[in-house]
Amino acid sequence: MNKIETWVNVPNNSDFTIYNLPYGAYTDKEGNHSFGVAIGRQIIDLNRLQEAGLLSDINLPGGIFNRTHLNDFIALGKPVWTSLRNRLTQLLTKGNTALQDKSDEIMLDQDDVKMRMPIHIGDYTDFYSSIEHAANVGSMFRDPDKALLPNWRHLPVGYHGRSSSIYISGTPIYRPMGQQIPKGETQPIFGESKRLDIELEMAFIIGGNTTQGECINTSVAEDHIFGMVLFNDWSARDIQKWEYVPLGPFLGKNFASSISPWIVTLDALNPFRVAGPVQDPKVLPYLQYQGEKNFDIHLEVALTTEAGDETIISRSNFKYMYWNMAQQLAHHTINGCTICVGDMMASGTISGKDKSSYGSMLELSWAGKNPIQLNSGETRTFLQDGDTVTLRGHGERDDIRVGFGEVSGKILPPKK
Amino acid sequence: MNKIETWVNVPNNSDFTIYNLPYGAYTDKEGNHSFGVAIGRQIIDLNRLQEAGLLSDINLPGGIFNRTHLNDFIALGKPVWTSLRNRLTQLLTKGNTALQDKSDEIMLDQDDVKMRMPIHIGDYTDFYSSIEHAANVGSMFRDPDKALLPNWRHLPVGYHGRSSSIYISGTPIYRPMGQQIPKGETQPIFGESKRLDIELEMAFIIGGNTTQGECINTSVAEDHIFGMVLFNDWSARDIQKWEYVPLGPFLGKNFASSISPWIVTLDALNPFRVAGPVQDPKVLPYLQYQGEKNFDIHLEVALTTEAGDETIISRSNFKYMYWNMAQQLAHHTINGCTICVGDMMASGTISGKDKSSYGSMLELSWAGKNPIQLNSGETRTFLQDGDTVTLRGHGERDDIRVGFGEVSGKILPPKK
Repeated sequence: MNKIETWVNVPNNSDFTIYNLPYGAYTDKEGNHSFGVAIGRQIIDLNRLQEAGLLSDINLPGGIFNRTHLNDFIALGKPVWTSLRNRLTQLLTKGNTALQDKSDEIMLDQDDVKMRMPIHIGDYTDFYSSIEHAANVGSMFRDPDKALLPNWRHLPVGYHGRSSSIYISGTPIYRPMGQQIPKGETQPIFGESKRLDIELEMAFIIGGNTTQGECINTSVAEDHIFGMVLFNDWSARDIQKWEYVPLGPFLGKNFASSISPWIVTLDALNPFRVAGPVQDPKVLPYLQYQGEKNFDIHLEVALTTEAGDETIISRSNFKYMYWNMAQQLAHHTINGCTICVGDMMASGTISGKDKSSYGSMLELSWAGKNPIQLNSGETRTFLQDGDTVTLRGHGERDDIRVGFGEVSGKILPPKK
Repeated sequence: MNKIETWVNVPNNSDFTIYNLPYGAYTDKEGNHSFGVAIGRQIIDLNRLQEAGLLSDINLPGGIFNRTHLNDFIALGKPVWTSLRNRLTQLLTKGNTALQDKSDEIMLDQDDVKMRMPIHIGDYTDFYSSIEHAANVGSMFRDPDKALLPNWRHLPVGYHGRSSSIYISGTPIYRPMGQQIPKGETQPIFGESKRLDIELEMAFIIGGNTTQGECINTSVAEDHIFGMVLFNDWSARDIQKWEYVPLGPFLGKNFASSISPWIVTLDALNPFRVAGPVQDPKVLPYLQYQGEKNFDIHLEVALTTEAGDETIISRSNFKYMYWNMAQQLAHHTINGCTICVGDMMASGTISGKDKSSYGSMLELSWAGKNPIQLNSGETRTFLQDGDTVTLRGHGERDDIRVGFGEVSGKILPPKK
């Protein structure tokens, strides 16, 4: 990849280099809603950039960045995303002064805005595509000798989740109340969840509609993806355990999920492509694919106590996924199910082989048996009120870094 | 209930009497999108009614009926719905000529419009609240002696479905393709679903938002419901069977669901309230309720062959539900999950005790063992291409009839 120098001051180890250019939505100090692209500690305000005439040769409707959500822009399709990306790269390259001369009017400091939900999420699907995670859960709750269920290697297992309770990073998370079944009992009790957990996931955002009955081939599936975010699928294990047979997780999941505010495009993630795992047994033809469709993205989970001590409790990587996004989309649409711009599809918990790379506290503490040691001297099996969990992720290759920033949420007691 | 006479010609046995006044969305012959209220074979165009000044003392924003979906109107809340209902009743009552004098401008014939989706559905939840259905499925697939799972009588089991593939009545349904596991085999095959089924359900539409962490008490839950429709949850049993463990139904369901186009308000259904079943064991306090929260609504399923022969294959009733809508909403929000205007929540298959009242072909044919006899002399276990399924429903009491019209869909081969 060619090195590009920018006139913007980008701190070392910034996630938001000129190779990234992620999209986000925010409210500025005056209360205006807008969209922007992050670089370093700055934001290029896209609405102001368009009004300044610097996007006039790109096929963009007037006011496209002056909407509630990015969906209308995303719906313009991949050629427009790519044109805008190329233009932004040009404008930010050292020597080009068209934007630099007007940066006072067009650019903001990230500290001066409050990030908000960038998209209206139509439907949200959660997959279960890490073989290590599925095997860990199967070992704990079913049978270590038959940890994976018979369908697992034949299809990317997924289920529908709730889009209304997906929140932007920084939103506090209220501990959920609900029914739980005490060990050995037959009558449920009611109360606060005592096994509140996280799931380290990534999610992609759909960039193109399909029509009823249409199937997406793996060879074109990625053209339907606008970009990705970090995703924390907060989970109440005790509520989930009692409710989930036979129709799947419901209240154990739908109280909250959190996403990182900056959408990193697939174009920006191209340098981090790697081969996926060998899939054995061979998958059915509609799930077969060509090329490198996994992504080498370093992930970490930080737990910060109320007192402020941070511990990295897991280091994982998105490249561990058994099923890739193209396969997930091909599977999701093989029955003619429609997908829409703004739909969100999450990976499922991303665990690696090593214990230090497990993507949930359920796995890290092995269902509560092995407490997780924190730097403060405390331990955790599941989350306490006052704990903050932060997910971070970035790709790095040949000195090129593209990152997601972070998604963070603090646990509060149930709302009264 | 007081008898009301209307100046509109309402045919005998019409579902759309003056006691009903359901809301629908349509496109007229000139291609205009609008909303209306049905009476007899007519529609009162709400946009024209407002423009004619006949709603001026109701607190309605200008152009509220000139939107893509009814959500903004619904979001105005129950006092507005009730005011509009009272006004419409007045205007339609014999002796009141304010609307009658302008009916040429304001009213349309139902035959002259094409119905379309009345609401933008945010999230869609499907419950599993008929004890007869759950017990039938449990008997067939698990153990007749333990037909109900341990959690079933303690909570209204539900799961998230796909809102993007909910279609208006009349939309054809493409037979889905997908993975299936042949009996006794360990390797899946790929092909058309051979066990395409229906589910006779009703669904309610959320009429008020909640905020993160808020729980809805059963005593006020019905105030969050705008109205109801008939709901056919098309199901591919062979796809479902292979995929659904452990995270629930996915591609076996999300290719299509169909709804009836007229939303019948809870106000209109009040005359048909009946007591629900005794719930034993006693449910937890947050699920307890007062008053009559079941509804006596006669339901039927018609199967029409390609040649045009219709057979009523099931007659059921919404009053059979074990869990009522107030309990479903209290459960759905007990963990702080937000609900939004336009969300749809379906009952699950509505089966009665008698075999003739089962709400799916899976149950009617007892997993294919007992073919269903049709009037044409043919039989069915599951649906064939060319079959049309129509659900109908109405309440009737003291000569007062309030009905839902119908929801209908024809099976086509997979889209190529």
